[in-house]
Amino acid sequence: MTFLNEVTLRYPDAISFAPGRPYDGFFDTEQIFGYLRGYLDHEEAQGSSPERIRTLMYQYGPVAGQIRDIVADWLRVDEDIDVPPESVVVTVGAQEAMLLVLRALVGGPEDAILVASPCFMGITGAARLLDIPVTPVPEGPDGFRREALEAVIEQERARGRRPRAFYVIPDHSNPSGTTMGLRDRTELLELAARHDLLIVEDSPYRLVSPGPPLPTLKSLDRARRVVHIGSFAKTVFPGARLGFVVADQPVVDDAGRRTLLADELAKIKSMVTVNTPSLSQAVVAGALLAARGRLSELNAKAAVHYDDALRHTLQELEARLPADRRAALGVRWNEPSGGFFLGVRVPFRADNAALVRSAEEFGVIWTPMSYFYPGGELGGDLGGRHGDGPEGGSEGGSEGGGVRELRLSISYVTPSEITEGTARLARFIEAASAPS
Amino acid sequence: MTFLNEVTLRYPDAISFAPGRPYDGFFDTEQIFGYLRGYLDHEEAQGSSPERIRTLMYQYGPVAGQIRDIVADWLRVDEDIDVPPESVVVTVGAQEAMLLVLRALVGGPEDAILVASPCFMGITGAARLLDIPVTPVPEGPDGFRREALEAVIEQERARGRRPRAFYVIPDHSNPSGTTMGLRDRTELLELAARHDLLIVEDSPYRLVSPGPPLPTLKSLDRARRVVHIGSFAKTVFPGARLGFVVADQPVVDDAGRRTLLADELAKIKSMVTVNTPSLSQAVVAGALLAARGRLSELNAKAAVHYDDALRHTLQELEARLPADRRAALGVRWNEPSGGFFLGVRVPFRADNAALVRSAEEFGVIWTPMSYFYPGGELGGDLGGRHGDGPEGGSEGGSEGGGVRELRLSISYVTPSEITEGTARLARFIEAASAPS
Repeated sequence: MTFLNEVTLRYPDAISFAPGRPYDGFFDTEQIFGYLRGYLDHEEAQGSSPERIRTLMYQYGPVAGQIRDIVADWLRVDEDIDVPPESVVVTVGAQEAMLLVLRALVGGPEDAILVASPCFMGITGAARLLDIPVTPVPEGPDGFRREALEAVIEQERARGRRPRAFYVIPDHSNPSGTTMGLRDRTELLELAARHDLLIVEDSPYRLVSPGPPLPTLKSLDRARRVVHIGSFAKTVFPGARLGFVVADQPVVDDAGRRTLLADELAKIKSMVTVNTPSLSQAVVAGALLAARGRLSELNAKAAVHYDDALRHTLQELEARLPADRRAALGVRWNEPSGGFFLGVRVPFRADNAALVRSAEEFGVIWTPMSYFYPGGELGGDLGGRHGDGPEGGSEGGSEGGGVRELRLSISYVTPSEITEGTARLARFIEAASAPS
Repeated sequence: MTFLNEVTLRYPDAISFAPGRPYDGFFDTEQIFGYLRGYLDHEEAQGSSPERIRTLMYQYGPVAGQIRDIVADWLRVDEDIDVPPESVVVTVGAQEAMLLVLRALVGGPEDAILVASPCFMGITGAARLLDIPVTPVPEGPDGFRREALEAVIEQERARGRRPRAFYVIPDHSNPSGTTMGLRDRTELLELAARHDLLIVEDSPYRLVSPGPPLPTLKSLDRARRVVHIGSFAKTVFPGARLGFVVADQPVVDDAGRRTLLADELAKIKSMVTVNTPSLSQAVVAGALLAARGRLSELNAKAAVHYDDALRHTLQELEARLPADRRAALGVRWNEPSGGFFLGVRVPFRADNAALVRSAEEFGVIWTPMSYFYPGGELGGDLGGRHGDGPEGGSEGGSEGGGVRELRLSISYVTPSEITEGTARLARFIEAASAPS
């Protein structure tokens, strides 16, 4: 996202609806010591000797993680996901989990990975790093469409490829903000069983959104069709970079032994980061233990904060661009039930040039939605193997996905920035929509 | 290393010279709180506000790291490596650094990565994960041989390939224990310039070895030919998983901008772990600050400990298998000047079957050196893309590298384990050398 960063640096007075980072006003530096102490006390209470605790903290740890039981307990209490600790791999953020899953599932060029489109950049970036092409499954205005997924599966099959997995953020998706309904969830699981497809469920925004949430795909999964990726980076401690993946699928390893997909992910992880830092595991475990596994309660205040910011943003947009004015301009946005993001459709090209004009003349920054379409503007950002350069400017050519849409993030703006920023955005949209 | 782990679990009473993990008797759990506090105090003394410090600890941080200046200061004081902080990328262990470097340097099948052989498994594992074949450069009994490297370069060129980099551990190599002499270092740099080759210098064992050390390749590098990978996992805090890479090479990115290789590595890192956990950076920075950048002093006690263990092992081996007996059997070992490892050549196949016999009948475990030869026993361990399975049992076939050699690690055994373990090893070697 280099270009976006440059624009942000070049126009420091602009209000930015770009960063998807969590608000950190709820965090407290001294609390870190408390979390760490809590984990050490827990280990002592469990009967660990001082030497054992020293080893737990200082030494290389198990590749799959040292707090798998605590994560599994939390998943049972807070997410109704009941899996053995052995199916959990603790990772350096959800990002590493994505890399591991892609690497494990793709065995050759015939294996296809399908991704909701628009799509979180982390999954397409990890795929590019591994030279794995991804196949987009177009979302509709309300998000996931089962027919689109089935059509893509058929199309891949017709090309002689084997669809292995479908990556999706069912709750408050990044970037579109959409949430998959309950019926779509059950139908997606049936479809996965019918087509021998795995679902990779990414779920970072559930606990920072107002509840009660819909059930995760994993909690509805009776056939081990779902690989569930989670993160504590939006909730407990972004800087700890702690994520995890639940992969309870039975597989047979290269030596012919029956094992779990989690074990295969751990083998790959041993060549990426060896193991997740003990300190990150300790502080997150300390927080989970302090909350008695109920992150939903620990995060209640944060969820209200983000919900307020989202409602405030929607109200201000409505006030500045009421329905009749929107209709006249050809502008519309969705109204997400939670999460950090919403999408705004506009009647002009919301490209890099428009972004610069918005920042320079109107003092407001947003993210072109085209960045989130596989093959979009991000293309040129990752050096290496394929030299993705030529794709970098692809937006300049044909009318790709999301070209007339922008993403707003509400997670890192203050109430006064929302009021002023939406006013600026409305002025920019009016100006950019005017016939030139 | 699944098979080795299984053997270790199956024979819990065996003394193991296999693990290369550091001894943790010098560490102190409470010290973690002190390191963390030290970093926070330092930030406060530098003028950071409480909010700024909270953000530093809790928030997503810069991809390339938040303690680059502290690492750069330490490199100047302790390693005579004088580079700007901008050329440093802080990573989740040296392992992530290897993955980033490989991904950045290999742009297509014509780009060849050369590795010293035998070779640390981390680099070959990372290469396999990225589907990058590596080309072995055979070591001699004393380690690095310039002629071998030149021959491999010529051979790759003749095949139409472009040698991009040579990976080597110049000091106390894992697995062979050899150290590159000063003259070889300067000649390697000249050779690199002549052949337009980068040197990837991995240096985990310098500060856990008795000093004074030879200069790093990077400190001798006047032409930015060396990418230097380092780790605090053997010295300050294994569980923090903190490594770094110095990459001050000027490059041109996909957008045509002049930048540093470090920036390209950071772009790749953003798709692997996003950023290195703040906590790991904070505790290591705290330790570096407490030692006023002199890890060499902080580690003096550890270096003596490892040196004692190595001398003790060599003395016991000598006592059990004196020179004339060794000559009669056809056994020999090297005498490393430091580090964790030594290699023992034996007159029989030191394969998995021999390992099981050694553990079961003699109660001693070691690592087959063949594991460390690119294409050796590890081959089957990593699931995914190429289904490396068939290579997994390659040792059973032709006489590959290191088949009659084993690696001993002295880092994680106590003095009494060394005395008893070497006695057992000598008995095993005698038995296995006897004509059957």
